[in-house]
Amino acid sequence: MGELPKNVSIREVGPRDGFQNEPEVIDTTDKVTLIDCLSKTGLRRIELTSFVRPDVIPQLSDAEPVLRGITRVGDVTYTVLIPNEKGLDRALAIQEEAGERLFDEVNLFLSASETHNCKNVNSSIEDSLSGLERVVARARDADLRCEGVISVSFGCPYEGTVPEDRVFGIAKRLAQAGCQEIAFGDTTGMANPIQVRTFFERARAELSGLELTAHFHNTRGQGLANVLTALEAGVASFESSFGELGGCPVPAGATGNIATEDLVSMLHEMDIETGIDLTKLIRCSSRAQEVLGRPLGSHVLKAGPVGS
Amino acid sequence: MGELPKNVSIREVGPRDGFQNEPEVIDTTDKVTLIDCLSKTGLRRIELTSFVRPDVIPQLSDAEPVLRGITRVGDVTYTVLIPNEKGLDRALAIQEEAGERLFDEVNLFLSASETHNCKNVNSSIEDSLSGLERVVARARDADLRCEGVISVSFGCPYEGTVPEDRVFGIAKRLAQAGCQEIAFGDTTGMANPIQVRTFFERARAELSGLELTAHFHNTRGQGLANVLTALEAGVASFESSFGELGGCPVPAGATGNIATEDLVSMLHEMDIETGIDLTKLIRCSSRAQEVLGRPLGSHVLKAGPVGS
Repeated sequence: MGELPKNVSIREVGPRDGFQNEPEVIDTTDKVTLIDCLSKTGLRRIELTSFVRPDVIPQLSDAEPVLRGITRVGDVTYTVLIPNEKGLDRALAIQEEAGERLFDEVNLFLSASETHNCKNVNSSIEDSLSGLERVVARARDADLRCEGVISVSFGCPYEGTVPEDRVFGIAKRLAQAGCQEIAFGDTTGMANPIQVRTFFERARAELSGLELTAHFHNTRGQGLANVLTALEAGVASFESSFGELGGCPVPAGATGNIATEDLVSMLHEMDIETGIDLTKLIRCSSRAQEVLGRPLGSHVLKAGPVGS
Repeated sequence: MGELPKNVSIREVGPRDGFQNEPEVIDTTDKVTLIDCLSKTGLRRIELTSFVRPDVIPQLSDAEPVLRGITRVGDVTYTVLIPNEKGLDRALAIQEEAGERLFDEVNLFLSASETHNCKNVNSSIEDSLSGLERVVARARDADLRCEGVISVSFGCPYEGTVPEDRVFGIAKRLAQAGCQEIAFGDTTGMANPIQVRTFFERARAELSGLELTAHFHNTRGQGLANVLTALEAGVASFESSFGELGGCPVPAGATGNIATEDLVSMLHEMDIETGIDLTKLIRCSSRAQEVLGRPLGSHVLKAGPVGS
């Protein structure tokens, strides 16, 4: 095991990625309560919602009231997902209307395989990239930090192997457009620890100057094993979801995102700092469990922290 | 990442460890069907049952009919758990009565913390060791291979940290008594990947000539991450349970053993051979799910293998 990072940054994606994937629409007040709860855990990055079409994803149709409803905590960076220019228009409009900063960064996504991108956003990779380049340019003009998220970076459920060259090519285009951070998504849990290590060693060599973020799913139980080799390859930025919410599980019923509390527990046990109070974080997941009225998949939520 | 083993041996513990932890007693015929199914997957080691007191663990009171009922497959090694000399008496009696080999090896267990050992077997570590030394001597005389299992090797839920010195001291006593293999159990999922790597590097240095086996639980979602650093430390023998059955979860409702199919999936994706046909193994877990009438925790059972 090489030298591991001493500090790791975690972006909590549950309020967007998790809430979006719930079959029932969660009440705005419950969302606000949960986000406010997360803001007090020591998490420094939270993805709040998405400016997608409300008729397509009714679960997130309350983006505006959520942004207005939450209480911002000083050192937390808030992110919203922007699918296209129309989404950016809405996001910028509400920011302007409020006359204050409701969010600090945007993330934008596309897939590294043509089939997955087509099924997800009905567009070719090239058309997605062209559209996102315009979004990034305008977002940067509005002083918003930009994160590009590349789905199925480690394998596609339709096409199988995804060439690293293609993933890094997309990452470079996003970086040239102005993205300061690139997240690589293992959208259906196809990555294995050896692949992850090789991938991120190359990513660090080829994409210097960018923040490189790993977004793993626990579809086949390998989520934290993949985190481990990403750490070994020097990755110090991860995305995860409290309670193990969301991640658009494939197939339905499978696990999606790794649980933030499972990730934090492992990192803390390894003496890697996250700034997060694990007990407070578990309390957030426990509240989410009450709101949703079903047991969530997170391991540490059930077992408690080591030594508890 | 150092050189990883190219081949890994997996002992399937579900028929003992899994079936023992089910609230309802499973029918003997169902057990036999599931074990016969497992015997045809390419698994080369299966733990079948335990010769514990039937009034204490009614779930395994059918040890004799299970052993007589299954169809042995040539290259599979079958193990039974022996708690004490009385258990060995029963096991040897049925072997003799059958006039043929019904099992090939025994495993014996104790805990590395006084409190856990006392709560588990109502005995001090020293008294347990003395008893097991007699069992091992007699088992070796009967030409049975012996595996010593040390519970809470990586931390105790009652005492916290368990000194490595004590664990290795117990391992040496078991080895001197005649155990050819020592398994180290992370009984309540307290191990972390850094600890595991350090532990097994030392174990390999201090316990040469013994087969060293890792038995991880997925209590806090770190099971496969711990497998990974054990592999990095040169461990090539693991125990796991099909479907994610058993493992005496602490607290109740938490996850216990790592699922064999999750382990096999990760190893195969990393190009490490196990000899196991993953599709056939998943079929066994699927049948167990039908028998038990509830969804099992295994990830790969839900998601299928990569590329499926």
